[in-house]
Amino acid sequence: MPAIQLQTDEEEVLAANRTFYTALQSLDLPLMDQVWLHTDWVKCIHPGWDLMVGWDEIRASWEDIFRSTEQMMVSISRPLVHVEGASAWVSCLENVTTASQSNFSTALVEATNIFVRRGSGWFLAHHHTTPLAEPPPDASAPVQ
Amino acid sequence: MPAIQLQTDEEEVLAANRTFYTALQSLDLPLMDQVWLHTDWVKCIHPGWDLMVGWDEIRASWEDIFRSTEQMMVSISRPLVHVEGASAWVSCLENVTTASQSNFSTALVEATNIFVRRGSGWFLAHHHTTPLAEPPPDASAPVQ
Repeated sequence: MPAIQLQTDEEEVLAANRTFYTALQSLDLPLMDQVWLHTDWVKCIHPGWDLMVGWDEIRASWEDIFRSTEQMMVSISRPLVHVEGASAWVSCLENVTTASQSNFSTALVEATNIFVRRGSGWFLAHHHTTPLAEPPPDASAPVQ
Repeated sequence: MPAIQLQTDEEEVLAANRTFYTALQSLDLPLMDQVWLHTDWVKCIHPGWDLMVGWDEIRASWEDIFRSTEQMMVSISRPLVHVEGASAWVSCLENVTTASQSNFSTALVEATNIFVRRGSGWFLAHHHTTPLAEPPPDASAPVQ
């Protein structure tokens, strides 16, 4: 009989966190629908935006962002997870590169993502981001 | 028999959130000690700072901030609370005015504060802040 690998709660939450960033990078609204909890109290603070409350408003914002974005590349570093019963939160750094019709930008963002368990799944209930200051250009870099 | 007013979980969490800001405004380290959970996984992002992990590092940061601050005024608006079992989080806007030896500054900050229940109390386990952009000067203000 093959061994069954059971995931810990922490692994499940980190997997849900990765799925969120897959949805973001793929500009995939149906996947975003699956990631989030659909209630009127979930909250989202996009980088540089005001707080949004409720899934309807948050979903509309993803729709807007995905419509105005041609391509996005997101990589995550330093994910730190804590599980507390049926709640869990992840702190991570987002490296985001965005291409739209008018410009091309990169950003380093500190994120707090709170998940809640419903049945056997973990759903995103709170996404708080802070754009970090750009590091100064590296003065020690060799001149080409 | 006098009626006993029991607080809801939400009221208890909002009271814990107010106590945190009382500690902040009063530059009161012993009260800050009471507000926070003392573990190695609690996290804090002060406005414009990098993520800190663990109570020892976070406590040292409050000590530094309180030492270099002469006076602080903090008012909170739009507190939104959600309780999920033994976890809860509050979204609120902080209006912070700070006076130190060298300068005087005001800031509007978006905060996410996550609390966990231990026994009969709620303790702060995660403090994530984002400084918001200053609104432009009010062009309609009368010239003095």
